[in-house]
Amino acid sequence: MTRTRSAPTLDDVAQLAGVSTATVSRCLNAPDRVVEGTRKKVLAAVDELGYTPNFGARAMAAKRTFTIGAIIPTMDNAIFARGIQAFQEALFERGYTLLVASSSYDPQVEADQIRSLVARGADGLFLIGYERDPAVYDYLAQQSVPVLISWAFDAQQNVPTVGFDNRKGMRAIAEAIIGLGHRRIAVVSGMLDGNDRTTERVEGIREALSAHGIDPDTVPVLQTPYEIDNGTEAFKSLMTSATPPTAVICGNDVLAVGALLGAQDLGLTVPADVSITGFDDIELARIVTPALTTVHVPHRDMGRKAAEALIEMVETKAPVASVEIPITLKMRGSLAPPKE
Amino acid sequence: MTRTRSAPTLDDVAQLAGVSTATVSRCLNAPDRVVEGTRKKVLAAVDELGYTPNFGARAMAAKRTFTIGAIIPTMDNAIFARGIQAFQEALFERGYTLLVASSSYDPQVEADQIRSLVARGADGLFLIGYERDPAVYDYLAQQSVPVLISWAFDAQQNVPTVGFDNRKGMRAIAEAIIGLGHRRIAVVSGMLDGNDRTTERVEGIREALSAHGIDPDTVPVLQTPYEIDNGTEAFKSLMTSATPPTAVICGNDVLAVGALLGAQDLGLTVPADVSITGFDDIELARIVTPALTTVHVPHRDMGRKAAEALIEMVETKAPVASVEIPITLKMRGSLAPPKE
Repeated sequence: MTRTRSAPTLDDVAQLAGVSTATVSRCLNAPDRVVEGTRKKVLAAVDELGYTPNFGARAMAAKRTFTIGAIIPTMDNAIFARGIQAFQEALFERGYTLLVASSSYDPQVEADQIRSLVARGADGLFLIGYERDPAVYDYLAQQSVPVLISWAFDAQQNVPTVGFDNRKGMRAIAEAIIGLGHRRIAVVSGMLDGNDRTTERVEGIREALSAHGIDPDTVPVLQTPYEIDNGTEAFKSLMTSATPPTAVICGNDVLAVGALLGAQDLGLTVPADVSITGFDDIELARIVTPALTTVHVPHRDMGRKAAEALIEMVETKAPVASVEIPITLKMRGSLAPPKE
Repeated sequence: MTRTRSAPTLDDVAQLAGVSTATVSRCLNAPDRVVEGTRKKVLAAVDELGYTPNFGARAMAAKRTFTIGAIIPTMDNAIFARGIQAFQEALFERGYTLLVASSSYDPQVEADQIRSLVARGADGLFLIGYERDPAVYDYLAQQSVPVLISWAFDAQQNVPTVGFDNRKGMRAIAEAIIGLGHRRIAVVSGMLDGNDRTTERVEGIREALSAHGIDPDTVPVLQTPYEIDNGTEAFKSLMTSATPPTAVICGNDVLAVGALLGAQDLGLTVPADVSITGFDDIELARIVTPALTTVHVPHRDMGRKAAEALIEMVETKAPVASVEIPITLKMRGSLAPPKE
């Protein structure tokens, strides 16, 4: 580990195999265009020297690196875990390697990571949500790197997408809550700034409220980063206010689980004293007591379909039609009619 | 997105800026060695053309890419999530980008991903556990790519490590179970083959059993991949056997949560009817009812310390001393003395 790096070069391989560097390059990039005897000699030399083909040169010759880059906001909290794992498994089956970076929900970090992945020759990029500096999209178009959006779906956007409609999903859950008779409703949302998914979810709630004659501006919306403890804290502040809500709509399951723990701390019974809902249907949602009413996102299915779509874009150099992944309301024990 | 890729080259930048390609290269890799006027001209040309420095050329000039590669067995199930997120945040603070690949617990996939990350110029690699083909370690030594191991600690191994002792952790939990009077014990383990962490955990249990006069070979050990549903299934098969155990030691929290759900299905009360324990202390462990007795791994602390150690290896080109991360038994509601 301490010796100086002195990686073998294409020249070293050519010399050991007794062929030209062009032949070595052809062996590595188009082996079917080289006679078998030569190919074997070259591959033996590659093995003996432990030669790692220079990435840039190989990419130029093959026009593809079989590497896909994904940037997700966080690796923590399992929000993106299942979908990304399925995405990577589907890519792997097709011979592609996935490299994942995590931006910590910071647009500037994401922009740097996009440039880094493109510089490392990513054949295509998988990004979460639409909202980012237009300069980033311009850069990707200029570099002709296909990009696929996920975890969001908006028919108005013209970037290819395999994702779900956050607004529609949250509107459905809000309709269910209002339908059960709740009128004193509060929202614990993720941070809205720079996050089109959270923003759409809150819009969905506002639409449902308006449709049922409740002024959305009377409904408190607390914003907090997606962490269990933040959900607990926000829930407690709502429930200890002068007019506590009978139902708390949480921006995702992580916040909703935090809210459930907050109810335990306050000695409140869910759903008898207060209803709590989530979004995503990650595993947390079904293992808590009571299990969470939430919006079910078919993460594995979405990840696999996204992989197919992005590979098609990479291989055909053409955009694909966007796909809306259907999401469904999952009614479980954490939601019931209000007491009064 | 459909136009042909025609990325601007170093030559294009040099031509537009009216300088030599060597000057452009120097501007990008050692800007303090170029006078300001020239630097500004070059950077303006870089911006105007949307030039992305060729990765190979830049890496050669800078001798470093400020990219770290990590390969984890899975992105699903949150087992590695919190530690990797902390690892990436600490790297980011020091100016490094983290690229993560997931091997699906397949050694061959991991070996391919290691070569892929090295070919893309990773300055250092972060790998989980020690156990892999010696040829992989030879390759990394030959390439002079520093590698740091985590999620394991074994003073006998000579690869630098920032991790915890799986055997010691599981021995502690088994000692606690035996100390409460349990004698009919069973184990639901992750898959043992090719996974030194699971193997060490089972060894820790066997040590504790032997130390208390229980023949380890009389204790059933079921192996199953780390998925909640697998934990449920394995637990049910143990509890419906002729001599059901009074305590089930699970290889990690994911399996233990599955076992808890299995107990619910069977109408068993935990811990009155049967005790269940986990390992990791991920968030799942504290949000289930009853909360899990488990081994607490300080994932965030481990991730940050690992980042510091790997950066030191990359920057000094020397190995670092291994660090054992202390782990502690977390007693919660899922463990109690046996009924009889």
